[in-house]
Amino acid sequence: MEKKISMAVIRRLPRYYRYLTDLLKVDIKRISSKELSERMGITASQIRQDLNCFGGFGQQGYGYNVESLYREIGKILGVDRRFNTIIIGAGNMGNALANYANFKKRGYDLIGVFDVSPDRVGKEINGLKIMHLDEMESFVRNHKVDIAILTVPSQNISEVADKVAALGVKGIWNFSPQDLKLAGDIVVENVHLSDGLMVLGYRIKEKEQG
Amino acid sequence: MEKKISMAVIRRLPRYYRYLTDLLKVDIKRISSKELSERMGITASQIRQDLNCFGGFGQQGYGYNVESLYREIGKILGVDRRFNTIIIGAGNMGNALANYANFKKRGYDLIGVFDVSPDRVGKEINGLKIMHLDEMESFVRNHKVDIAILTVPSQNISEVADKVAALGVKGIWNFSPQDLKLAGDIVVENVHLSDGLMVLGYRIKEKEQG
Repeated sequence: MEKKISMAVIRRLPRYYRYLTDLLKVDIKRISSKELSERMGITASQIRQDLNCFGGFGQQGYGYNVESLYREIGKILGVDRRFNTIIIGAGNMGNALANYANFKKRGYDLIGVFDVSPDRVGKEINGLKIMHLDEMESFVRNHKVDIAILTVPSQNISEVADKVAALGVKGIWNFSPQDLKLAGDIVVENVHLSDGLMVLGYRIKEKEQG
Repeated sequence: MEKKISMAVIRRLPRYYRYLTDLLKVDIKRISSKELSERMGITASQIRQDLNCFGGFGQQGYGYNVESLYREIGKILGVDRRFNTIIIGAGNMGNALANYANFKKRGYDLIGVFDVSPDRVGKEINGLKIMHLDEMESFVRNHKVDIAILTVPSQNISEVADKVAALGVKGIWNFSPQDLKLAGDIVVENVHLSDGLMVLGYRIKEKEQG
């Protein structure tokens, strides 16, 4: 079961994973694609198609075994694996993310926070002393850093990203509004918060028009 | 051209809109689905299928007219429309969002910020004085508030959401890790930041395994 799963399906897996986590919490042991569809707002046929991609744990007339589906999706997503993570940019967004308890639970350990502002360097975020960006290079060389979360201003983003990539960090989570595209092996996920807001705006408009 | 477009397509439209905006900036007037595919990392057939949903502006051997596609998607998303927006929760995330210049550009005007903490109430965010949550009701009654962005702790989320819904606000953008489901006409978009982080983790793991 190591065949290639499309990125479109992968992007939906964290969502399945969240819903299955909630089902397990309330001790639901099996669920049909129809019920899952109603809870998640995804069509039942989409769910069947998605879940078929990795073996298909549904049985006719029985539904999905919640726990085995949860375990399998968790394995695909790599939730058993831990990632050493740093944040570059200790402004409001950096602070908000540093304090997001969910990340640690999901396997992402925050081990360093960096900034350039004298007002921030030396202060603490979530028990970590903010270091100057100049210290990042030696820090990354001495710790195995997997992921850098970038919450720096747009004008600094490509310089910082290049630095991080050159140090062999494996992935960047980019919160600047500007998309990053980097050569080489580093993986980039660009966050576009305003996309979600635009979808909300669309849905409001649609509702108003009936 | 007012037929129903599926939510899956709608959720991709902001992304098309961003890419088209970038193309217009560098004065690119037409583009094939193949080129757009390479830039966006979506398959060309998905792009053709998506864009066919609302009329299909592509011409065989010519490609898409960037400007008309941009205008049409903008119209569907309602970018010509402005939304009065408030933020409830003036912590780090609330501050980060209040300072996100992109929102205003996209039609979302921040007109009020609320919190309950005496440390925050009375201070300013982005030129707006933070009000106590107790003042929210009269504020919403006196201003036409379309959207409430909720960045309150998980334990307060449903109480605050119910209050907002009862006041006739049209949409909620929920940043608490807990999904909100509300009865009635109010539209909710739940933000799940950790979903993106999990996708990043998956892609790193995939790369490591070759």
